[in-house]
Amino acid sequence: MEIAEFQGLMDNLYGEADRERGIPSTVAWLCEELGELAQAVRKGTQADQLHELGDVLAWLASLANQLGLSLEDAAQRYVDTPP
Amino acid sequence: MEIAEFQGLMDNLYGEADRERGIPSTVAWLCEELGELAQAVRKGTQADQLHELGDVLAWLASLANQLGLSLEDAAQRYVDTPP
Repeated sequence: MEIAEFQGLMDNLYGEADRERGIPSTVAWLCEELGELAQAVRKGTQADQLHELGDVLAWLASLANQLGLSLEDAAQRYVDTPP
Repeated sequence: MEIAEFQGLMDNLYGEADRERGIPSTVAWLCEELGELAQAVRKGTQADQLHELGDVLAWLASLANQLGLSLEDAAQRYVDTPP
């Protein structure tokens, strides 16, 4: 799946709810999901970890959508000029 | 860019350093980058935000690599059974 395709999917599924919620709340949700990922890494199963990786990726895409930015563009920096 | 392609790139670029650092430190780095993203969202430019979105995506991929999990598989759940 293309990164842009996934971001577009998030826009279709959640774009309206994302816009209603607003950017600060979306950042808060992303933080919450990262906490769940950290917990899954520490004491969860591989299935838990996979689930939470997906959630963090999804919320990252939702945030990118609200910022009007492309995760593909963001990823491209690592192709062109990896730090 | 395919999600799997990006994850593979992260493995090529940083896999060895990631393994040396270990999973807990990688989680800590991911948290740090999320903080930088939150700050960029609050008071940074679009360029800052794009930069930090890329960093969070990169560190998420690094973590997935260390867990032996595929971000594509993680993303697929949102295609099959979106919450």
